[in-house]
Amino acid sequence: MQVYGGIEAGGTKFVCAVGDASGELLERLEYATTAPYETLHRAVDFFRQQKRALGAVGVACFGPLDLRPASRTYGHITSTPKPGWSNTDVLGPLLQGLGVPVGFDTDVNGAALAEHRWGAACGLDTFVYLTIGTGIGGGGMVGGKLLHGLLHPEMGHLRVPHDRDADPFEGTCPFHGDCWEGLACGPALAERSGMEASVLPDDHPAWVLEANYLALGLVSIICILSPQRVIIGGGVMRRAVLLHLVRKRVVQLLAGYLPLPALGSHVDEYIVPPALGENAGVLGAIALAERAARQAEPQL
Amino acid sequence: MQVYGGIEAGGTKFVCAVGDASGELLERLEYATTAPYETLHRAVDFFRQQKRALGAVGVACFGPLDLRPASRTYGHITSTPKPGWSNTDVLGPLLQGLGVPVGFDTDVNGAALAEHRWGAACGLDTFVYLTIGTGIGGGGMVGGKLLHGLLHPEMGHLRVPHDRDADPFEGTCPFHGDCWEGLACGPALAERSGMEASVLPDDHPAWVLEANYLALGLVSIICILSPQRVIIGGGVMRRAVLLHLVRKRVVQLLAGYLPLPALGSHVDEYIVPPALGENAGVLGAIALAERAARQAEPQL
Repeated sequence: MQVYGGIEAGGTKFVCAVGDASGELLERLEYATTAPYETLHRAVDFFRQQKRALGAVGVACFGPLDLRPASRTYGHITSTPKPGWSNTDVLGPLLQGLGVPVGFDTDVNGAALAEHRWGAACGLDTFVYLTIGTGIGGGGMVGGKLLHGLLHPEMGHLRVPHDRDADPFEGTCPFHGDCWEGLACGPALAERSGMEASVLPDDHPAWVLEANYLALGLVSIICILSPQRVIIGGGVMRRAVLLHLVRKRVVQLLAGYLPLPALGSHVDEYIVPPALGENAGVLGAIALAERAARQAEPQL
Repeated sequence: MQVYGGIEAGGTKFVCAVGDASGELLERLEYATTAPYETLHRAVDFFRQQKRALGAVGVACFGPLDLRPASRTYGHITSTPKPGWSNTDVLGPLLQGLGVPVGFDTDVNGAALAEHRWGAACGLDTFVYLTIGTGIGGGGMVGGKLLHGLLHPEMGHLRVPHDRDADPFEGTCPFHGDCWEGLACGPALAERSGMEASVLPDDHPAWVLEANYLALGLVSIICILSPQRVIIGGGVMRRAVLLHLVRKRVVQLLAGYLPLPALGSHVDEYIVPPALGENAGVLGAIALAERAARQAEPQL
């Protein structure tokens, strides 16, 4: 079976892996993200050492990214708070070093593609993939195509109602203060309650507030994109009680306006956790590779 | 040149027209929306009287609609506050009465398709079309496909921040109170300020508040869909000062997070009025007809 390379390029760590079209991983290397040159060349070395010929390599990368193929800076990270990584050409060194097609997209679009290929979005053509962790990221597909457009989605920065009497917390976003990410990312949850999310008991009111903010953002996403399913993961969502609270609150907020089973009695099948767990990121990169190989084939 | 029929099916009036692929209208009939049977058969009669053979007919319809082709109620209006029109089969009587392919979509998706074909979205593949009037509606394309998914967008019902100290108005939406439409549709503007929008002077603070709500919703749409352009029309937007205020506020709210010309110095080319004016609705229906005719052709 043809094998592919995948790079989950994160701001904290890189995961490089070799996998096949069944979604199985055959090799895996994980290392800390350091300076761009060193970090990217470590990936090149890993793939060069492989005995099997790779059909393509995919990169699911932290951003914001330039994803416009006609752009002079296509394949670059544009602006990022990560020191040393602003305006980094990620794609160039990989194309030069590897000599195979390289697929390139956001980490969340990669994960969305993997969930579409092997996970919770099989058979759907319009869905959203969200990760609630250090930040809030979102990607997905509409009509079978990954979301791009002007740039790519930046779902974490949508605006949600914020009742400052009930929750005077200002939000953590350095750009917007109390945007969705500013109110509901992991650091916001910890800062507001004065303790790490992992030690907050299940019945702490912080979870109800968190669920409310997450649900408010989901309602806007549902009203704008009309996804057939919402996949929601990330570190904050590991708390089992939270998903239940989010589902309940989304149904409450929609208030029966759209009388569909998915937004009522069947919400447990509509708002779901990712199916691919810890490997979603690097499997996303492998799915991007598989797609790049297909696109590089001569058109008949 | 092949001609097509179009029906702009609104809750207040129906517009039926015959047009060609250049976007020119050759015949036009407008009448008040009454009971479903009478209203739909008047459209059938209009098209039957045409001397030219129609390649197809398109319907750009008020909703919510069932747009799932595999559904038993495909082509129906589902739930609507318009008396007598809930669960109305719109498509069936037209297919039976006309004997040509009939394209069917929401009024806003129709208008989006017309703007893509002949107007402000030519050459784009990911954009949004919004109408701010009696309600707020939104449609558009992602990757060249009209937005559908679970149902179709209901952008008017997304949530926006609402500072009740600055604006104690509860909102007009019977389902959600202060959702986007509830705070920023024409009736909300009138009810809050105690006078019709048309008589509010340009320097009335109601326009600044209106621009703020519209901009908050646009920011969420931009963060979720990453449109290449935002087309915004409807009765409320006829006030010239408003578009200027909305553009300025969107740029302020994004606060430089996405350093793109479209979201800064070039915002006047990014957030734009519709190009097709009063005929956008019925031209949308003609564009849906043209597409239905193409889809009905034998595949080679």
